[in-house]
Amino acid sequence: ASTLGYKMAVEEPVRCDTPSLAERDQQTKREKGVNDASPMRLRMEKFVKEQQKEIVRALEQADGTPFRVDEWQRKEGGGGITCVLQDGKVFEKAGVGVSVVYGTLPKPAIIKMRANHKNLASDDNIPDSLEFFAAGLSLIVHPKNPMAPTVHLNYRYFETANPDGSSGAWWFGGGSDLTPSYLFDEDAIQFHKNLKEVCDAHDKTYYPRFKKWCDEYFYNKHRGESRGIGGIFFDDLDETVSDKENTFAFVQDALKSFAPNYISIINKRKDMPFTEKEKEWQQIRRGKYVEFNLVHDRGTAFGLNTPGARVESILMSLPLTARWEYMYEPEPKSREARLVEVLKNPKEWV
Amino acid sequence: ASTLGYKMAVEEPVRCDTPSLAERDQQTKREKGVNDASPMRLRMEKFVKEQQKEIVRALEQADGTPFRVDEWQRKEGGGGITCVLQDGKVFEKAGVGVSVVYGTLPKPAIIKMRANHKNLASDDNIPDSLEFFAAGLSLIVHPKNPMAPTVHLNYRYFETANPDGSSGAWWFGGGSDLTPSYLFDEDAIQFHKNLKEVCDAHDKTYYPRFKKWCDEYFYNKHRGESRGIGGIFFDDLDETVSDKENTFAFVQDALKSFAPNYISIINKRKDMPFTEKEKEWQQIRRGKYVEFNLVHDRGTAFGLNTPGARVESILMSLPLTARWEYMYEPEPKSREARLVEVLKNPKEWV
Repeated sequence: ASTLGYKMAVEEPVRCDTPSLAERDQQTKREKGVNDASPMRLRMEKFVKEQQKEIVRALEQADGTPFRVDEWQRKEGGGGITCVLQDGKVFEKAGVGVSVVYGTLPKPAIIKMRANHKNLASDDNIPDSLEFFAAGLSLIVHPKNPMAPTVHLNYRYFETANPDGSSGAWWFGGGSDLTPSYLFDEDAIQFHKNLKEVCDAHDKTYYPRFKKWCDEYFYNKHRGESRGIGGIFFDDLDETVSDKENTFAFVQDALKSFAPNYISIINKRKDMPFTEKEKEWQQIRRGKYVEFNLVHDRGTAFGLNTPGARVESILMSLPLTARWEYMYEPEPKSREARLVEVLKNPKEWV
Repeated sequence: ASTLGYKMAVEEPVRCDTPSLAERDQQTKREKGVNDASPMRLRMEKFVKEQQKEIVRALEQADGTPFRVDEWQRKEGGGGITCVLQDGKVFEKAGVGVSVVYGTLPKPAIIKMRANHKNLASDDNIPDSLEFFAAGLSLIVHPKNPMAPTVHLNYRYFETANPDGSSGAWWFGGGSDLTPSYLFDEDAIQFHKNLKEVCDAHDKTYYPRFKKWCDEYFYNKHRGESRGIGGIFFDDLDETVSDKENTFAFVQDALKSFAPNYISIINKRKDMPFTEKEKEWQQIRRGKYVEFNLVHDRGTAFGLNTPGARVESILMSLPLTARWEYMYEPEPKSREARLVEVLKNPKEWV
């Protein structure tokens, strides 16, 4: 059946102009499925959805509690799957979300984005609008035990469609970072070592660049300290850095290595004894996590300002509980003070 | 002693240019004290410091717990007094802060502020910088009992100095608003009635205008609901609205009427029985309070981005504890659902 015929059959109002990127992709998936020869949009969407299932399964196994799964549609195009485990045995809150967005960039957004992506449009011919596609997986896990670290991960792909329907500009972004309340050097080393190995297998310059980028991005400026002990962060990984196929391979490796790495850290920490005072310190650190996410995180700000955004999916990153004590200062030379020291002066872990 | 002589005696490095606004004000206070003939800067500073003492005394009496008092200096000019009561008998957290800032507006800030204040400078002669003064009192009280409402108040005065040392542009801003977790109509009515009476005594147009302004300002846009049941909010109250003397009288009346009004509400609610589930709802509402303050509140954003700002004084507004439950929905027709209904559709209370 032609796209137009399909549209007339299932959708209204009927629009008789050319099919949108979303419509064309729906048709391709239906008729041909998704394989290595498919557009990167469909491959990335398929990959992050598979990974979401795998990670959810691994976290469920670690906790013994099932996730709640919500599938949602975005009126403006696309949708997502949000999986949340709340108040479990091991995890206070774990959110694993996939979102797929089809939309249109207005001219001012195109002009702004061209600062980093010259190939969005040629200098002398900036279109009035451009269709775009974005797909990504976001994850955040806040464990109950204060000895077990919070983790965050996000990998995403962005692409524009040329007016003729072909793929235009594209880039990958993402990373993963660890936020302990109590610092175990061996955990920080393991977490970074794993990321370095994944990076090194693709490009020896990645780890040092992306580690630094992470330290700079996840910085609670008003507190003068990092959110956590870092990891990697990158954005705008486009053809000026590497080709699409190799970059996708890197993102795949990075995402696939996450769950085994993090869960092995969790298994070491989840049953450690702790005091009420240590739990309180965790709650205070949670407060600073909230501050970063609500005050400084560009992704959260962008999401909350996007019309039709699913707010509960964006704010699944917030911990179940947090605490703000006025002028709280850890005791000198305590474990709490050492953490703050490291957050003020990020370390090289590998 | 001349100002220069004084400076040479107590300060270094010695600067031999004209004395700053802060230096001139210090000298005036020292030599003449502050009375009704003093510059408004000094009268407002004296007034908010007196009110801070009164309010702190009233809240201490209601709680039975003393406040911690921190006096601080701002390296760039000015300073403040921050009073916080934490984990008391009645209040989870109460912060009452005064700040006094002497600073310099750079040209871009002057140009931006001229949008609302034409008299900052004349069209054909915008100076490269302008000295300014700002003084205000900010207050936030989060009670323990979920039946007792959170309250916020802020009154402030802003003034620029002309290059010749005389007072330039000036304006007052402020207001007060109530945020219950459980809505008692009689409390909302009492709170608003008190504000309306204070407003009406000065200008019958104030209450309806400032009530609406409050509903619009304290709006958690991403949630589609107000932060609380409102009160009054105003900014830029300058000579286009009323004269300096009358506006100060209005601000004085508004600030002085606050403590008796709020504490009579607290006394009705502080010992009411409540369930664990009701406490949890309060914690969820606290989470939304944090969201407003960190995502939308201009004062907080401005403070956190001001070099040399005292972060702990700005963030004393955050509750001691807060909670974020994914997709939490109150039961239909419950008291919790009724609150949300009112937050989505602000009411006229008087």
